[in-house]
Amino acid sequence: MYDIIIIGGGAAGMSAAIYAMRGGMKTLLLEKLSCGGQAARTYEVDNYPGFWNAPEGPKLMEEFEKHAEKFNVEIKSEAVRDIISADGDVKTVKTRRNEYQTRTIIIATGASPKKLGVPGEAELAGAGVSYCATCDGAFFKGQDTVVIGGGNTAVEDALYLAGFCEHVFIMNRSKRFRASQVLMDKAKENPKITIYTDMVADSFEGTQRLERVMARNVITGEKGFISAAGVIVAIGISPENTVARKCGAELCERGFVKTDMYLATNVKGIFAAGDCRVSPLRQIVTAAADGAIAATSAINYVLQG
Amino acid sequence: MYDIIIIGGGAAGMSAAIYAMRGGMKTLLLEKLSCGGQAARTYEVDNYPGFWNAPEGPKLMEEFEKHAEKFNVEIKSEAVRDIISADGDVKTVKTRRNEYQTRTIIIATGASPKKLGVPGEAELAGAGVSYCATCDGAFFKGQDTVVIGGGNTAVEDALYLAGFCEHVFIMNRSKRFRASQVLMDKAKENPKITIYTDMVADSFEGTQRLERVMARNVITGEKGFISAAGVIVAIGISPENTVARKCGAELCERGFVKTDMYLATNVKGIFAAGDCRVSPLRQIVTAAADGAIAATSAINYVLQG
Repeated sequence: MYDIIIIGGGAAGMSAAIYAMRGGMKTLLLEKLSCGGQAARTYEVDNYPGFWNAPEGPKLMEEFEKHAEKFNVEIKSEAVRDIISADGDVKTVKTRRNEYQTRTIIIATGASPKKLGVPGEAELAGAGVSYCATCDGAFFKGQDTVVIGGGNTAVEDALYLAGFCEHVFIMNRSKRFRASQVLMDKAKENPKITIYTDMVADSFEGTQRLERVMARNVITGEKGFISAAGVIVAIGISPENTVARKCGAELCERGFVKTDMYLATNVKGIFAAGDCRVSPLRQIVTAAADGAIAATSAINYVLQG
Repeated sequence: MYDIIIIGGGAAGMSAAIYAMRGGMKTLLLEKLSCGGQAARTYEVDNYPGFWNAPEGPKLMEEFEKHAEKFNVEIKSEAVRDIISADGDVKTVKTRRNEYQTRTIIIATGASPKKLGVPGEAELAGAGVSYCATCDGAFFKGQDTVVIGGGNTAVEDALYLAGFCEHVFIMNRSKRFRASQVLMDKAKENPKITIYTDMVADSFEGTQRLERVMARNVITGEKGFISAAGVIVAIGISPENTVARKCGAELCERGFVKTDMYLATNVKGIFAAGDCRVSPLRQIVTAAADGAIAATSAINYVLQG
């Protein structure tokens, strides 16, 4: 019988493990792949406070894992298949081979950016192709960049990049933008931003790093390219919410888990942390903070519940 | 004219500086003392995720400062005297010698635990005398500990410590506890917790580290001591809210700054981050996350405002 089962071994889950173990909880961390989450698929992390030397993502996540292991957290590589009695005092977490009983669950299953699925995208990821302007925009300072997408995030990213990049091109596949009118007006009046509509990216090209985005007008069929040092693919982010659904946790219309300030979900004893929850910003440091808060709340639940 | 002025150079302020500078904002950080905040007055930091080697507080905060300086943030050692037109598009921050104009302000002024002011308290701080069970409790594993206070935090701390300490003594200066009845019942039924009422600490004693808490019954005058490896002084935390008040930011009844999910206060263009705000947990990692969120919100305000 565990006090806390953490599902997901990214920054949020590992931080939760550190706090849970320091709090004397019997804790199990379940991760279906290897630990590290999205951060471990990041080339370089320039903005996790304190690590000023910009470690590679996998290296930083190794430090997180060492930290959790220092407190002897039990980590198992198993995918969660089902949750039984999610709202009970004793909850059962089923994997393919095992069943575990626990008082509380912390859902830290993460989210992943939607991919375009075009040639060059995977090859140049972390070498000019990025999914997060806040994370990687600073690497493109003084250079031309492209933002792909038409929602609020895409246009916010373009405004953000225009603050320090040479020029920013927004490419949207249609004439209709989902972004708010206020944002669109700001983008249109910004001399450093050019908006292309009805335009899709067919591929990303470059030898060592991104050099150009191959573009096509979907109405005229006309082809061309934009030379750029960076491209932000901002076409959405998909929460991994299968576990949350099995728990009966309430989700927002975009599929992220709703929590209160203490990161409790609507289901008693079930907490959520990191990218999978409704949150104002998705960064390694915010995921790590979430893990600390969710673990502290779970500890209070176990001790007082 | 600055885009962002950050007031306070602790974990929250320095993290905000990292995010603001990477976002291309003209940023000034004002700190009245030296940077580092509460964390720099911490002996050892065992739970900032990634730093598994438990650095000393000042050392960790040096890494934060190096990180902010890497992005060339302007830091000035000046105390803020006044804020003019806090709700205007252009806000003026006055120090003794200077006036600075800015679009946005991030209040990251922190908070500090209330001290008892008894002999031995300052001398043994970080050597058994602590103000945060979540931070330091794990250092007292398997040993006897004392918690001083009678509010929710004190009793929660005692329950937390009872999970892994040998025994926990709660000392409260009166018979009345401010803690909720549920918490009191949990503490009373826990065999590892002993509650002393009408009891105050006269001093802390020990040569290298805390060895005993010298106690006195305020009704009978009887004196004695409790041998303990650690004491958590949990008599309250005082937010540093002078700047927030000058900005007209709304405070909770305990004096912490109220914010929304994006860390915006009720005053437009004024954000709050870290220990000074109403928050579910006060840790270095939560302060750092707050700094990232507040800076991102301030950037969006500047670009879209």
